[in-house]
Amino acid sequence: MNFLEERIQKDGIVKEGNVLKVDSFLNHQMDIDLFKQMGEEWKRRFADAPINKILTIEASGIGIACVVSEYFHAPVVFAKKSKSINIEGDMYITEVESFTHKCKNQVIVSKKFLNPEDHVLIIDDFLANGCALQGLISIVQQSGATLEGIGIAIEKGFQSGGRVIRNLGYHLESLAIVDAMDAQTGKITFREQ
Amino acid sequence: MNFLEERIQKDGIVKEGNVLKVDSFLNHQMDIDLFKQMGEEWKRRFADAPINKILTIEASGIGIACVVSEYFHAPVVFAKKSKSINIEGDMYITEVESFTHKCKNQVIVSKKFLNPEDHVLIIDDFLANGCALQGLISIVQQSGATLEGIGIAIEKGFQSGGRVIRNLGYHLESLAIVDAMDAQTGKITFREQ
Repeated sequence: MNFLEERIQKDGIVKEGNVLKVDSFLNHQMDIDLFKQMGEEWKRRFADAPINKILTIEASGIGIACVVSEYFHAPVVFAKKSKSINIEGDMYITEVESFTHKCKNQVIVSKKFLNPEDHVLIIDDFLANGCALQGLISIVQQSGATLEGIGIAIEKGFQSGGRVIRNLGYHLESLAIVDAMDAQTGKITFREQ
Repeated sequence: MNFLEERIQKDGIVKEGNVLKVDSFLNHQMDIDLFKQMGEEWKRRFADAPINKILTIEASGIGIACVVSEYFHAPVVFAKKSKSINIEGDMYITEVESFTHKCKNQVIVSKKFLNPEDHVLIIDDFLANGCALQGLISIVQQSGATLEGIGIAIEKGFQSGGRVIRNLGYHLESLAIVDAMDAQTGKITFREQ
């Protein structure tokens, strides 16, 4: 097991309905030393990519992306969730369905901050069905930038998001892939990587 | 002028209605090297405070708080904006009015992550009328933790938020206080500190 899998094993809580709570270190309280380890590991896995910009989505991706960006010496842009139709200025816009909140959100990035010269690394905390990630990829496509790779902290390997993204040929690096969880026993099965 | 005032002068855009756009380096695209300088400066200003936890609010406070936390070796907790009444588990709850979005949000923090032993530094990007900050202070009060201080990147000195907080005796350190802005000329007047 790597450092993140160990931490999930230790502090993650499995709940009914395939819910994995990691709010004590990843997406409510945030362990910045852990985020640094993640940055080091992604830097190793994307060592050859000429990344000059990191893209994430609010809210829980932002902290990870900002700490990780120190290993790439690149600014971070976060996509904003917006319900308002009334968006000022030139924006890349995509629509993302949220299963947690059972609603559709517009997700926007200002055109000023992504352009064809950019080489982008997408960072997010979770990948399950992949809706949010597909939205971020769509924004990179719209901008004409090059998508160098995708770094995910925890992938739910039993949902289709990761498989689809790999099938499409993207370089996806999930630090922990959960293949099964059992809410009764608390057992978490990680995919060998 | 300090480093942040210089950056605001250089890249900030003044718009009608006392709007200051700093989205190229602070709250949409984020300059992580700048955030590190902010962390260094707040560490200097709060040198004697036994801070063990940093509290912020989604979304644009998170990136700053995470980078700044490296100077305090403390985990970050971010308060979540939530419209749902149906909140699982034990939460500190407060209500925050948003002038930008013209709505009220519940703001929540899990009770697990703030308790009477904690010594808290609140970090946020903007302080204007102070609604979000008052909500965060209310959450610290509810938890019984000690509020050691408040670090704000940009305070709009012509609005009442900062004055109220200082009158109440809190240790507030705003890195840039804008006393006036002129959308016609683009001129920004900073308060001498």
